[in-house]
Amino acid sequence: MNERPDETWINETLYPDWGQRFRVTKELARVRSDFQDIVVFESDSHGRVLVLDGAIQITERDEFVYQEMLTHVPMLAHPDARRVLIIGAGDGGVLRRVLQHKTVEKAVMVEIDGLVIELSKTHLPSIAGDAWNDPRAEVIVGDGIDYVAKAADESFDVIIVDSTDPVGVGEVLFTDAFYKDCARILSSDGLIVNQCGVPFMQADELRETSVRRARFFPHVSAYVAAVPTYVGGFMTLGIASKGQKPDTQTSAEISERAQKVGVLGTTRYWTPEIHTGAFNLPPYIAENLPSGIA
Amino acid sequence: MNERPDETWINETLYPDWGQRFRVTKELARVRSDFQDIVVFESDSHGRVLVLDGAIQITERDEFVYQEMLTHVPMLAHPDARRVLIIGAGDGGVLRRVLQHKTVEKAVMVEIDGLVIELSKTHLPSIAGDAWNDPRAEVIVGDGIDYVAKAADESFDVIIVDSTDPVGVGEVLFTDAFYKDCARILSSDGLIVNQCGVPFMQADELRETSVRRARFFPHVSAYVAAVPTYVGGFMTLGIASKGQKPDTQTSAEISERAQKVGVLGTTRYWTPEIHTGAFNLPPYIAENLPSGIA
Repeated sequence: MNERPDETWINETLYPDWGQRFRVTKELARVRSDFQDIVVFESDSHGRVLVLDGAIQITERDEFVYQEMLTHVPMLAHPDARRVLIIGAGDGGVLRRVLQHKTVEKAVMVEIDGLVIELSKTHLPSIAGDAWNDPRAEVIVGDGIDYVAKAADESFDVIIVDSTDPVGVGEVLFTDAFYKDCARILSSDGLIVNQCGVPFMQADELRETSVRRARFFPHVSAYVAAVPTYVGGFMTLGIASKGQKPDTQTSAEISERAQKVGVLGTTRYWTPEIHTGAFNLPPYIAENLPSGIA
Repeated sequence: MNERPDETWINETLYPDWGQRFRVTKELARVRSDFQDIVVFESDSHGRVLVLDGAIQITERDEFVYQEMLTHVPMLAHPDARRVLIIGAGDGGVLRRVLQHKTVEKAVMVEIDGLVIELSKTHLPSIAGDAWNDPRAEVIVGDGIDYVAKAADESFDVIIVDSTDPVGVGEVLFTDAFYKDCARILSSDGLIVNQCGVPFMQADELRETSVRRARFFPHVSAYVAAVPTYVGGFMTLGIASKGQKPDTQTSAEISERAQKVGVLGTTRYWTPEIHTGAFNLPPYIAENLPSGIA
């Protein structure tokens, strides 16, 4: 089953010595934006796939895993999330999940690359669904760093950072300055979540961002999700809280909150039990958190 | 970071349209045994890698995830596992983990392909360590189907099936005849575990083996592990029990058992909390179990 001469394959180039590859049935877009290389292609195995600077960002078939865990965990770890800031996430999938929570009053999304939004609307319309037209949504094409620097104190209950890895355009979202502003603009029970990569391949990413976030938040933790196309075992999502610890609820309490906001029973990966269990980290991952660093 | 002309890459050929690829720094073996194609190579990313019929079986760097979860979960779900049968697992990694449990009196390993054992001893010695020489170990090069057909009733407390996927040489380990014999030779509290593939890519494998096992065992369940090089999200490990349900212990009870047998604190993925949490399945996986099939 090696490829035939008439087949086209795309290799992910995130890691120099290992990675995943897709057979491409149709290339839909290949452009250079002001910020990055963008490719969208169609595959038999995963439906349509979005690639930024050679790294797989999202596929139609498995996007639910990452989006559900990135969104529902902080939204339900917070006792009453009404105002939400999303940084990045140009495909609109996080915005859609945030707006599923019927108690949300306002969701601001700040994506630096307008072309990612446009290409997602054209080629990946199912990922955002109707979220773009929701009156609670405000979509800004702009720099997330500038946005958090200028936003008023305590403007948001939850901040969700759906960035690329800390190379290229996403790098500034892993800095002290950014986390400091995030802490300032979060309300007293506020939570921030950000993707911290796949520790089996990128342990430094979790280690460094955890240390940085610990400078500005009293509670720094992480939880895991097994995302099919973020290959290499569990990916980690870093979570930090200004108020109570983010992982103290029982699954019964999370279930009750999910019921109240209209999310319970709508998911394919997230459940209340998976929510609470995801904070139990394998030792090989836990050793990269401040509590586990000797 | 696409490959240079002087580089050698190996593509996994498990799925026709998607898969992982490794940069090979040195090929150590490439042979055809009586049963399958065997390749062992060295990589910068994962150390040494064993490939059977084009499918990645084990890498030095991530083997701990699969081996710990395949072994410690059934061994500690059983109240007092003393006699253990291992089918397959020619690299010796399961045998090593079984023998870590100091209460084990006898571990029989039946591997059909003696060449896998020989190549593992030569090229992957760290995976089995000293297990081959343990006086409690009996290693048989032979057919697991024949072995279970001839073994006496209630000979074993735990059976661990570390097979390839149900194609090629591993196919007979997914049949009614095999499961029926396994049920017969297990003691009254006996448990069997077998790998059921990666449901995101191979949902039929979990679905079909679960239905089959339900014909011979009163309790059929599954748990998950995020194995870095079994790419595609969670893999599932099917577990079936003749006695009590395999997932009723609390993590405190599992911790106590692990302490008693000498396993607690020796692991890099498995913990008592991960043990119990692994039985909470995402809905997209649970729908393939008998309890979830409409």
